[in-house]
Amino acid sequence: MKNTAILLLTCPDRKGVVAAIADFIYRHNGNILHADEHGDLDSGMFQMRVEFDPADFSIDLAEFSKPFSPIAEKFEMNWRLAQSSYRPRMIILVSKHDHCLVDLLYRHKSGELACDIPLIISNHPDNQPIAEFYCIPYITVPVPKDNKCEAEQKILDGAKPYHQAFARGVKLIGATSHYVTEVLDDGPIIEQDVVRISHRDSLDDLLQKGRDLEKVVLSRAVRWHIENRVLLYGNKTVVFD
Amino acid sequence: MKNTAILLLTCPDRKGVVAAIADFIYRHNGNILHADEHGDLDSGMFQMRVEFDPADFSIDLAEFSKPFSPIAEKFEMNWRLAQSSYRPRMIILVSKHDHCLVDLLYRHKSGELACDIPLIISNHPDNQPIAEFYCIPYITVPVPKDNKCEAEQKILDGAKPYHQAFARGVKLIGATSHYVTEVLDDGPIIEQDVVRISHRDSLDDLLQKGRDLEKVVLSRAVRWHIENRVLLYGNKTVVFD
Amino acid sequence: MKNTAILLLTCPDRKGVVAAIADFIYRHNGNILHADEHGDLDSGMFQMRVEFDPADFSIDLAEFSKPFSPIAEKFEMNWRLAQSSYRPRMIILVSKHDHCLVDLLYRHKSGELACDIPLIISNHPDNQPIAEFYCIPYITVPVPKDNKCEAEQKILDGAKPYHQAFARGVKLIGATSHYVTEVLDDGPIIEQDVVRISHRDSLDDLLQKGRDLEKVVLSRAVRWHIENRVLLYGNKTVVFD
Amino acid sequence: MKNTAILLLTCPDRKGVVAAIADFIYRHNGNILHADEHGDLDSGMFQMRVEFDPADFSIDLAEFSKPFSPIAEKFEMNWRLAQSSYRPRMIILVSKHDHCLVDLLYRHKSGELACDIPLIISNHPDNQPIAEFYCIPYITVPVPKDNKCEAEQKILDGAKPYHQAFARGVKLIGATSHYVTEVLDDGPIIEQDVVRISHRDSLDDLLQKGRDLEKVVLSRAVRWHIENRVLLYGNKTVVFD
Repeated sequence: MKNTAILLLTCPDRKGVVAAIADFIYRHNGNILHADEHGDLDSGMFQMRVEFDPADFSIDLAEFSKPFSPIAEKFEMNWRLAQSSYRPRMIILVSKHDHCLVDLLYRHKSGELACDIPLIISNHPDNQPIAEFYCIPYITVPVPKDNKCEAEQKILDGAKPYHQAFARGVKLIGATSHYVTEVLDDGPIIEQDVVRISHRDSLDDLLQKGRDLEKVVLSRAVRWHIENRVLLYGNKTVVFD
Repeated sequence: MKNTAILLLTCPDRKGVVAAIADFIYRHNGNILHADEHGDLDSGMFQMRVEFDPADFSIDLAEFSKPFSPIAEKFEMNWRLAQSSYRPRMIILVSKHDHCLVDLLYRHKSGELACDIPLIISNHPDNQPIAEFYCIPYITVPVPKDNKCEAEQKILDGAKPYHQAFARGVKLIGATSHYVTEVLDDGPIIEQDVVRISHRDSLDDLLQKGRDLEKVVLSRAVRWHIENRVLLYGNKTVVFD
Repeated sequence: MKNTAILLLTCPDRKGVVAAIADFIYRHNGNILHADEHGDLDSGMFQMRVEFDPADFSIDLAEFSKPFSPIAEKFEMNWRLAQSSYRPRMIILVSKHDHCLVDLLYRHKSGELACDIPLIISNHPDNQPIAEFYCIPYITVPVPKDNKCEAEQKILDGAKPYHQAFARGVKLIGATSHYVTEVLDDGPIIEQDVVRISHRDSLDDLLQKGRDLEKVVLSRAVRWHIENRVLLYGNKTVVFD
Repeated sequence: MKNTAILLLTCPDRKGVVAAIADFIYRHNGNILHADEHGDLDSGMFQMRVEFDPADFSIDLAEFSKPFSPIAEKFEMNWRLAQSSYRPRMIILVSKHDHCLVDLLYRHKSGELACDIPLIISNHPDNQPIAEFYCIPYITVPVPKDNKCEAEQKILDGAKPYHQAFARGVKLIGATSHYVTEVLDDGPIIEQDVVRISHRDSLDDLLQKGRDLEKVVLSRAVRWHIENRVLLYGNKTVVFD
């Protein structure tokens, strides 16, 4: 896999942003592989993701910010530079439900997720064997019953969405992957999807369809995050897929 | 189109329900074309839709309830009998947004909706021409501004779901068709669907995708209702599609 | 999990089929849990799947065919009886591509697939470790290079559907699960699905989307087969989902 | 609706393409609103769509090619410039099946399709009334029976895809919008989609689902073409959606 450099930025929409970026990359001998630029007319903000080949780039990427800062300042950019060769370290937190864990570990092994997984943390020992199969350290951190805070209780109260969906008679169930904030289920959304259900689905069928959906939605979000395709932007994300 | 009889029923789940129904139809010389039976283990209730050919049926369908009532009583059934030859009369209430109206009228003319449409009622005159094209009477009933009740105001406050979706950064937008109750958006759901959106969609794109979605979801719900495929069941529906 | 009996049948569409079945089950003290009957007007054939609770059934299910045969003969039925408590034995044949294998083994362990897997056969040793993790015997049967018959060569020639999709510029890629006949890709179809692709997808992205699709489509087909939801019917299937 | 200029181009992938374009637009005082650039590693070709605001552009767009030609020649570009204010003229050819016609005309009237429709041509008079409703001239050009060429016969032979789908027992039906070439169904694909079917769908249901699908797929393709989002590229398209 070739190493590429990825520049993600957002700034007020002004003339010359693209030219300034493209010119900067070209002048320093980089080759743009993909780029996606978008002006959000409603907010007056501009978002951009540009991926370039730094093989002949005349700037050491570790020193990128110095020569780039005049441009960044001129256009009031909020930016970051990433490299595809950099493998982020991802710790997985998992309950005893193992479907997403098994899916992520398989994808990781298959090369779909370009990250390292140095540790899995769980409040249950159940998933130790699969962690061992993939040779990943696994720590069990039990949560003391009398220590559960209000937010946790709230999660537990909200933990039966498929039961609620069943009771309400909905025709679709959905799953969402989002960044985490201090407010439950309020973080910027990365990915969502739904699956159709009917009266022929028992509650068990719903739970299974839900698990399949959760795996897909989570793995997409993780991959997009790792591949630096997600631009945080207020309480929203722009996903350059 | 052949005339068929459709029996929809719900009752406590007990042995012999299907046999009693199938035997009743057979003894009176009806031919079952389709049937769908379902026991809901969670609630202990049984739901059934059976469509039969009444060409040689020995009972006048107008007198069906008399010979059928012993069975209905024995199994404590909540039931109704419909005939596909009966064309329900559907009045359409429409605001000035015309996408669903145009779609329904075209489907009606094409023979997809086996109902009569004797009248269209609107609070705006804008849709008179399309009503005239399809030769359907159209009445404008303006809503006095100072007469808007609390519920209407609530509808107006909630009337910008696509704007909210845009602001929240969701990745899917959805539409729901449901029966109407006195509580806003709380009636039994008939059909739902979603469409994927991205940052490349402007608010106008969202509105258009939303319109396309609403047309499809509404027309499915209307057709299923007309074809007696919807069984109301508590605050839920079972759709025998 | 409760044991249920499942009767699958197809016969010429005639009056009294449903009544005969429902009455037979009722008279012998069975309780119908779900049933789905369908008359195919185009072919004049009738298809039915009925699932009943045999807890109090007065016939030993092993002896079912004897008392049932008069009905079967009268209506010229093609039928079979299955029990949910019977766990079919499934041997998995796998190449070195492991995505479907890993998915099936996880679903099996999770209880989604009510079958036994006594053996995995492959022409490569690569998937031995995952088989060992799930404690399933694994046999490698190498295919001699000079022994490949014409059909195999044809498979190899057709083995690059995603490359062809990429070259043709299609906007969707699909996967199909079907029963196997002597003619390549000609067996009765059980399940199909598609996923959307765009120019932003590299060939690697297509391959990954294809793998995800194949897993879902295969596991649905396997589950439906195991749960006796698939009725073979000419060169088609009816899936009572 | 603001007027925008859209530059679509393809060229061999070389360093500096984006910079040259972005700089050219910036130097002449254009403001890039959206841009999408993509290097196709497999073919070594680069594709780009850039939409800019020409309000203050220092070049008359009618004279664009002269100052731009040195850049186009340097990078061996295949390019075209379009303006959103230019309304292409679209003639609709229609048989007696009216579902796509009705859909297109409604979308046109609603402002979704930024084109003019000066004429509808058909081999049947049936659709004259809807054309008149939208005040569009309608010409009937009957095709003499004895004059049908081989290609037409081939179309007629292939005209029953839903019947074939029904006979084959497929679980999905699809529709494709593509440009037309002299070879039937071989032109570059613009859009495709599918819809799920089951044994519960009669042939009539399939035909209706097919019609709904065709409307959606055709109207998307038409809109993307009109909005200059489709880049022809060999026998493929890149759709910058």
